[in-house]
Amino acid sequence: MTIADVARHAGVSRQTVSNVLNSPEVVKEETRRRVLAAVESLGYRVSAAARQMRTGRSRLLAVRIETTQDGMNVFDRFLHGLTESAARSGYRVLLYTATGDENEIETFDQLLGEFEPDGFVLTSTHHGDPRAAWLAERDLPFVSFGRPWGASEATHPWVDVDGAAGTEAATRHLIDAGHRRIGFIGWEPGSGVGDDRRTGWSRTLGAEGLDTGLALETDGSPAAGRAAALELVERGATALVGVSDSVALGALQVTRAVVGFDDTPVAAAVGLTSLGQPLAEAAARCVELLTDRLSGRPTASHVLLSPTLVIRKDPRP
Amino acid sequence: MTIADVARHAGVSRQTVSNVLNSPEVVKEETRRRVLAAVESLGYRVSAAARQMRTGRSRLLAVRIETTQDGMNVFDRFLHGLTESAARSGYRVLLYTATGDENEIETFDQLLGEFEPDGFVLTSTHHGDPRAAWLAERDLPFVSFGRPWGASEATHPWVDVDGAAGTEAATRHLIDAGHRRIGFIGWEPGSGVGDDRRTGWSRTLGAEGLDTGLALETDGSPAAGRAAALELVERGATALVGVSDSVALGALQVTRAVVGFDDTPVAAAVGLTSLGQPLAEAAARCVELLTDRLSGRPTASHVLLSPTLVIRKDPRP
Repeated sequence: MTIADVARHAGVSRQTVSNVLNSPEVVKEETRRRVLAAVESLGYRVSAAARQMRTGRSRLLAVRIETTQDGMNVFDRFLHGLTESAARSGYRVLLYTATGDENEIETFDQLLGEFEPDGFVLTSTHHGDPRAAWLAERDLPFVSFGRPWGASEATHPWVDVDGAAGTEAATRHLIDAGHRRIGFIGWEPGSGVGDDRRTGWSRTLGAEGLDTGLALETDGSPAAGRAAALELVERGATALVGVSDSVALGALQVTRAVVGFDDTPVAAAVGLTSLGQPLAEAAARCVELLTDRLSGRPTASHVLLSPTLVIRKDPRP
Repeated sequence: MTIADVARHAGVSRQTVSNVLNSPEVVKEETRRRVLAAVESLGYRVSAAARQMRTGRSRLLAVRIETTQDGMNVFDRFLHGLTESAARSGYRVLLYTATGDENEIETFDQLLGEFEPDGFVLTSTHHGDPRAAWLAERDLPFVSFGRPWGASEATHPWVDVDGAAGTEAATRHLIDAGHRRIGFIGWEPGSGVGDDRRTGWSRTLGAEGLDTGLALETDGSPAAGRAAALELVERGATALVGVSDSVALGALQVTRAVVGFDDTPVAAAVGLTSLGQPLAEAAARCVELLTDRLSGRPTASHVLLSPTLVIRKDPRP
């Protein structure tokens, strides 16, 4: 059913039908009624396009789908939650891919031209992130899952999970089990997320007067995790906190007292204790911050959620 | 920048601007030029909505995001490929959630009213699937990742992975390693995918004159996989083929000679031999079948791809 069908049925021009949908004020009351009766009797559904022109709203939220490297990231679970929460608020999720920050900014521009999303959800925020700056300059509504690392917390609305609180809980769990020399297997410094997770480990040991020198940087792979674990155990560590399940999986081949991060299906499969992120809640909060802003409602500037320690193997020495 | 800005700049009514975008034939040439010059000088981008009204195309493909039960399904990897392939063809992916077939059909209706997607990509096809019938009745373009189980292969365009060929390769691999009593840990009968995977195992044993009676049905969990493996080994099985990595993971606690299905990150983490689905290719073929149809190009009716055996542990008895 098209505008032409409605026009034929109402005995008016296509232009008049379009006017009724888009600029009802220019159409005579009697004509408007005739067109609406035709729409009704033909079951013509006011199209998304017509409504979008009328309201200026696409009801679309755009989010990048990230390349899964080893299937051990948390993005996919976040995306499930985002789609569900968006639907509850009357929004749909539009996916895009990008190969880097600059390419993602080009994609923003393209999406704005093609689909006019009402808002963007950024993921994988990092130091000096040009994507947030680009969106903020243009006053485009967005929220990030991830803090504005290295910038003021008030830079833009965000939702994040408190990594330091997580590794603090992990370190405390190993201390409570009787460990005194606890190592940390991290990523290279400079990643906001990795540095944050290391902080929780070191401040917990520091508060207990324990050695905070047993830390190594890795590329994040299980093989690098295993190598780091061997070296840390050689240096006297009896338990290890990993920056991710991936490094923790490698470390588990060296010692049983290991805690990972992200509570991936792999952690569950191999019995690895790990920190679970509240991803459905994080996604719901992202949608809330964004749709509050789109509706002009007052809203929080940011939300920091706590991870949960999921205990599996007995960590006692 | 809005139509009102362009109208003001060109000294015409908003309606005239809208006419230039939607029905240029009703506008005088001189006025049309004046509006286009204003559009140009203001950098006004023809909005998605205006273009959609003009072309009747939204450039959106809709796909359901499935609930991840145990993080061991293949959908997320398929979705990455789908988004990338769609982008290369000038389409974007619109996500939706649904709680069952009927709810998904209601969602089709809602999406058609709200966003008018150009096509749908169905997943998890099954016997007597009402979703495909609903779309086909309305002549809406769609493709399924998954065969029309129980219906004619020519029912609608589809892409699938040959599960029977996969379990045939798995069973052959175990026979070649010296096994003669090979069990199968499956799902309850009636699932197209599960029945297909069982077929490959039984026909391979049958062709060699080996016992095809060592099969058990499970609910698909690792715990049920382990219980089935214990019983099958008790009945004399020396090696096992699993319908999924999930049941194979449980079986791996009973015997080393196990092959899973789907080559999930968990299989890689625990060293489980498994069958990998060519998900990026399946996604690309889905986009190809759908966009060919949308563009009126001749296209294949369906595509059946082969999985690849990824060998890890030594399966010799």
